[in-house]
Amino acid sequence: MLERNTPAPDEISVAAWARSIRRSALQEMLSVAARPDILSFALGLPAAELFPVEQYAEASARVLATDRLALQYQPPFAPLKRHVVALMRERDVFCDERQVFLTAGAQQGMNLLARVLLDPGGSVMMEELAYTGFQQVVAPYRPEVLTVPTDADTGLDVDAVESLLRSGARPAFIYVVTDGHNPLGVSMSGEKRMHLVRLARRFRVPIVEDDAYGLLHYDGASLRPLRAFDGDWVCYVGSFSKILAPALRVGWLVVPEPLLEALSVVKESSDINTSTFAQRGVAELLDAGHLPAHLSMLRREYRARRDAMDAALRQHFPAEARWNLPTNGLFIWVTLPEGADAGELMRVAVEQEQVAFVPGHAFSVKDPRCGSNCMRLNFSNCDPARIEEGVKRLGRVLRSVTSKTAASAAL
Amino acid sequence: MLERNTPAPDEISVAAWARSIRRSALQEMLSVAARPDILSFALGLPAAELFPVEQYAEASARVLATDRLALQYQPPFAPLKRHVVALMRERDVFCDERQVFLTAGAQQGMNLLARVLLDPGGSVMMEELAYTGFQQVVAPYRPEVLTVPTDADTGLDVDAVESLLRSGARPAFIYVVTDGHNPLGVSMSGEKRMHLVRLARRFRVPIVEDDAYGLLHYDGASLRPLRAFDGDWVCYVGSFSKILAPALRVGWLVVPEPLLEALSVVKESSDINTSTFAQRGVAELLDAGHLPAHLSMLRREYRARRDAMDAALRQHFPAEARWNLPTNGLFIWVTLPEGADAGELMRVAVEQEQVAFVPGHAFSVKDPRCGSNCMRLNFSNCDPARIEEGVKRLGRVLRSVTSKTAASAAL
Repeated sequence: MLERNTPAPDEISVAAWARSIRRSALQEMLSVAARPDILSFALGLPAAELFPVEQYAEASARVLATDRLALQYQPPFAPLKRHVVALMRERDVFCDERQVFLTAGAQQGMNLLARVLLDPGGSVMMEELAYTGFQQVVAPYRPEVLTVPTDADTGLDVDAVESLLRSGARPAFIYVVTDGHNPLGVSMSGEKRMHLVRLARRFRVPIVEDDAYGLLHYDGASLRPLRAFDGDWVCYVGSFSKILAPALRVGWLVVPEPLLEALSVVKESSDINTSTFAQRGVAELLDAGHLPAHLSMLRREYRARRDAMDAALRQHFPAEARWNLPTNGLFIWVTLPEGADAGELMRVAVEQEQVAFVPGHAFSVKDPRCGSNCMRLNFSNCDPARIEEGVKRLGRVLRSVTSKTAASAAL
Repeated sequence: MLERNTPAPDEISVAAWARSIRRSALQEMLSVAARPDILSFALGLPAAELFPVEQYAEASARVLATDRLALQYQPPFAPLKRHVVALMRERDVFCDERQVFLTAGAQQGMNLLARVLLDPGGSVMMEELAYTGFQQVVAPYRPEVLTVPTDADTGLDVDAVESLLRSGARPAFIYVVTDGHNPLGVSMSGEKRMHLVRLARRFRVPIVEDDAYGLLHYDGASLRPLRAFDGDWVCYVGSFSKILAPALRVGWLVVPEPLLEALSVVKESSDINTSTFAQRGVAELLDAGHLPAHLSMLRREYRARRDAMDAALRQHFPAEARWNLPTNGLFIWVTLPEGADAGELMRVAVEQEQVAFVPGHAFSVKDPRCGSNCMRLNFSNCDPARIEEGVKRLGRVLRSVTSKTAASAAL
């Protein structure tokens, strides 16, 4: 055997950005929230009972029965690109196959775009409260992060974007969730969409538009995404994870053609290619024409869950709590009175009532107090009866914590 | 509509490293080589006719029939980790589940490790001729690359590694393919393995060990991988792509535990998780006990192809050509006399004989002439008859080019 004068293994020197990685108290709490006895509004999971499992099983069996090359390395599957082009037309986006870049899901799409657009130490612009998965994407670049506020009714504060750009900011890109914002639930107003695209063109700053929820609309069709107004400065990120199933790991980008060469190189170096089998399976499912009926069913079911959560919140939450009904996506964002501590609420909710959610400050990009009196509640992954039950329990937690606070204030 | 005073779309500013991305003449040639009329020894493809398609179809049908959550986001599938632990024992690696980190294939594994270990502008050590997919992984970091030579019989020059380390080099890691080197075909001698691991410990430099081909051995079992000698400094990269099928997109790392936290964060930000469906399908296939017989069959078939290529080379190649018989992997590396131009040979071979390979300098890390008189020939993806036919054609090309060169030299 070799001699064992080995230094301690934790002396492997990791990259500078990775040295600050610590499992947060919140993450610990969320792993508790994954316990089977917990009624969870915490994660952004689509409903497994609504997955098109039988159709996908048929589609994938057909693919394997007819072509062994479905298990080989292959170039991106052109028929799937054609399906994406057709699907984008539903969002009023008219693109062609050349602009469609297939990915292993939206998360990978954002990752590839960051790799192509962002230099180490460069700057990015995003909202003060933003999808944590996107924050993780840019963290290794140790970027300068420019934040703008979000209005609860009309979305991202485009005037704030303009003001930053006018004062000279030139981020590598602006990150936006146009419809069904995660975590805020809001969809951007039409006027703001136009304004933002104009700014991107004028200041030559690309936009990364994360559109995971544009097709999940509950009160009539979504407004047009930014990509519908501009194909030169908007990089659109789409995914089948929420409209079919996450484990397909298939998504797409619609991007300005000058980015395609670099994206291909980055994609190849990331995972060689998106599973040929998964690409073929999704294409086969779409060939069979299942998607329109499936989407209608999802919209109906998720609308019912959203409405059940809204009704339960009205019944069980204190009158001071505020929320908007989201037209898209998977989340209701509840704002409690100033000074409420959603982190503490989460702890008590899990311990006393076996119910979980994500405290708002978990999404804060800079200020750890931003969103600390807010709760992100997922409504897609529980049926209406469990939603009613969970919100009722949360209501009890809110009353118990509020009365304790009042009592301790009285001492 | 919006006003159209848009600047040219190619003015989107990309990251500095991406500005130098150009599609090379070689890549153009390789896309020509993908034409169906071309007999190709160019790519590193496993044989599709040997994929366990029926077994995988059964396994994936069973998974979908029994658990809808196979299409959901899920934590890494513990039973698959246990299969990996058992498989690693075949390589004399004794690890436990905690050290196994599941990936979407070896390429992703290398990518995640680079993200965790390498700072922008940091340094890495590798061989002068190295897998291009690995070169692509580190390119965005614009690293200082330290290269060492490779011996055709015993592999990587470990004395050169030692000399660099002694003179103060401290790369973020050393990249090594221990068995069935891509592109060189060579496997490292046992003595060099021990020496390299000692150096890693002594100088506290981690090793990234790319072991895509360790289980594909043709002349008795492979020697132990580096990871069998050390669990503190060796990061092992494994994959099901070559032993089952690439489109599963499932692989694994075996890593020192202090790296796991950072790897989890990087993995989540890369693609959230490896397809649950793919993980479950592979685990189900392994549960059914198909792998040992499948591996035996692959070794037998690939050995026959390797031997067919060796015999054809002896018959059709000029006496001055040199190659070693690889014990592992997918490639034979042929060295032609000094001054031969494998790039020109490739062009002529495709045009005149519809046969393709990769010229050696495509793998050169620094010096564009390194390997320029060499050819990487893949033997896994053609049956013996086509191998004989392809090598015969290449022999004709070699003779025609050589006689022309002689003729022009005579002028």
